[in-house]
Amino acid sequence: MNGMATELRPAVAWADGAIEIIDQTRLPAELVIQRLETTADIVEAIQRLAVRGAPAIGGCGALAVVVGLDEAAADSAQGALAALEEVATRVGEARPTAVNLSYAVRRVRERAAGGTSAAEIRELALAEALAILEEDHDACERIGEFGRAELASAEAILTHCNTGRLATLGWGTALGVVYAKAAAGEPVRVFACEARPLLQGARLTAWELLDAGIDVTLIPDNAAASLLRDGRADAVVVGADRVAANGDTANKLGTYPLALAAKAAGVPVYVAAPVSTFDPATASGDDIVIEERAADEVRAYHGTYAAPADVPVWNPAFDVTPHELVTGYITDLGVLQPPFDDLHRPASDTDSTEVPT
Amino acid sequence: MNGMATELRPAVAWADGAIEIIDQTRLPAELVIQRLETTADIVEAIQRLAVRGAPAIGGCGALAVVVGLDEAAADSAQGALAALEEVATRVGEARPTAVNLSYAVRRVRERAAGGTSAAEIRELALAEALAILEEDHDACERIGEFGRAELASAEAILTHCNTGRLATLGWGTALGVVYAKAAAGEPVRVFACEARPLLQGARLTAWELLDAGIDVTLIPDNAAASLLRDGRADAVVVGADRVAANGDTANKLGTYPLALAAKAAGVPVYVAAPVSTFDPATASGDDIVIEERAADEVRAYHGTYAAPADVPVWNPAFDVTPHELVTGYITDLGVLQPPFDDLHRPASDTDSTEVPT
Repeated sequence: MNGMATELRPAVAWADGAIEIIDQTRLPAELVIQRLETTADIVEAIQRLAVRGAPAIGGCGALAVVVGLDEAAADSAQGALAALEEVATRVGEARPTAVNLSYAVRRVRERAAGGTSAAEIRELALAEALAILEEDHDACERIGEFGRAELASAEAILTHCNTGRLATLGWGTALGVVYAKAAAGEPVRVFACEARPLLQGARLTAWELLDAGIDVTLIPDNAAASLLRDGRADAVVVGADRVAANGDTANKLGTYPLALAAKAAGVPVYVAAPVSTFDPATASGDDIVIEERAADEVRAYHGTYAAPADVPVWNPAFDVTPHELVTGYITDLGVLQPPFDDLHRPASDTDSTEVPT
Repeated sequence: MNGMATELRPAVAWADGAIEIIDQTRLPAELVIQRLETTADIVEAIQRLAVRGAPAIGGCGALAVVVGLDEAAADSAQGALAALEEVATRVGEARPTAVNLSYAVRRVRERAAGGTSAAEIRELALAEALAILEEDHDACERIGEFGRAELASAEAILTHCNTGRLATLGWGTALGVVYAKAAAGEPVRVFACEARPLLQGARLTAWELLDAGIDVTLIPDNAAASLLRDGRADAVVVGADRVAANGDTANKLGTYPLALAAKAAGVPVYVAAPVSTFDPATASGDDIVIEERAADEVRAYHGTYAAPADVPVWNPAFDVTPHELVTGYITDLGVLQPPFDDLHRPASDTDSTEVPT
């Protein structure tokens, strides 16, 4: 893979026994690289959202196990295994709701536990953590390439929230499609919804696309429907937090009205996500529990209150887009259609297609 | 009209030769009454949006002509007429895009010009200004009562932006329906969209409904579609900036996606506006030019930048809701249906109904 996107600084990187992250709480005002040298540093960075986005958190957690083993500096296999359990538990619980985090930490712990010396345990942990980073990086690349082929004639992409380099261990999912187009030298421009209330579109997507030299225009979420009706976007591409077996998709609040507006305008809607985001155990969107977040996320921004401090608020973090509104699901296995009941069976059972060359 | 709403402080009031306004730039943090005793004060208050909402600005401008005549203190009819022209021009241009302002100032100037002495000119100007205040107040009351009858079975009203006491010279248009229900002792609760980017829903609607003791829940605009799909709102009621002859309605950005979401959920959508907002000369929404506003309204939040300061922004102030999505138009002449080509002809030509008692 050539092109600009992979040359840019990743959200999470392994650097000489420590983790380097982009401190996302400082964006877009300044690009600050934070070096995390202890598990305490890492847990704190995850909890204060300096690193965010489920895959990025997962990668950070996986590397944290290696940092924890180095901190313990055990001189026996038994000591290293004890340290492994301790750090895995501590890091894995830093954000209990982030499935990728516990999954990644568990993978590293299980692989490392097969070691027969402290050195080998550390070696296996690092190998597994780097494998996780590489797998997500590759999944993003495949999503990007499949999306580029599917959306060959789409130049203007409307997206929501942040699904790019800052949220994943590669160039992203929905934004991966954009980066793939740019890397191939194809024309692409992005309309980024700001994503109230936490403004990840304004804070992060606008920043990372400008940083990559990609044409981006920020819009209030409320402007998306008019933009679509005016024929100014060729496709809507969004990420996903969970895709049910029937294709109903939980994603950042605002995705469902965006899909309704796209349908009214006759613009296709794509969900871009790795197959690990698809959950055949969830039959439909009705089975997805939507997290409700703090009222002050809506009342105030960066400590400044816009609304009365005592007004009741309803602030769901996600919404569910019914599968009828989704044109296709761009995954690392190809562009898929529901149902997804069999998605995690061997690849030969799926309707995947080859990565375009 | 009895009830709580009319007892609350109006946005604009005449008080002993001066205008008293609620300084809306200070809400919701504090309720500050500003006394405007000179035309310079008034123009400044209009320009910095201390008073806003087209009818409220119109009333303020009408009274400003009287303040200007008092300032000039002419001792001849000729002197008073010269002062009348000067102040009318100055105030009428304070916000060139607010049609109600120039309309109200013109009405006062034309009526006052019939006076034959300085005293009579001042007397006629005040009478016309107070008539404008009273007409808008009464129009709001009739809208509220017609809406209350139409929506007798709707308890949970979803609304957008601010259309209440702070925007009009009465209890409002869409919020007038809410106040009418409350004044009649009927159960009513409101879900208020925050209305990005300028957050009039969060800043003003939440404040004035709390102030009136009405049950209000603030939601991110992005949450409206989920709320509607969950069956938590019985009706959507919004205001209008201009209604075309075919019923297409220009209103605050975000109204169109709200109407799409309501349609998908099978929830009725009402536009509440005085007949003066209906423009038979505009054939359809295609003929309505949408004002685009400053990028920093989206990039920054109360002075704090959320987005990169150099990211391009598309920030239309309004959107157009096609008439097919509107269930009915609640006006001071009754609940109407398009076309509205004949709306401004004598009342016998319209399909108005009587005010319910």
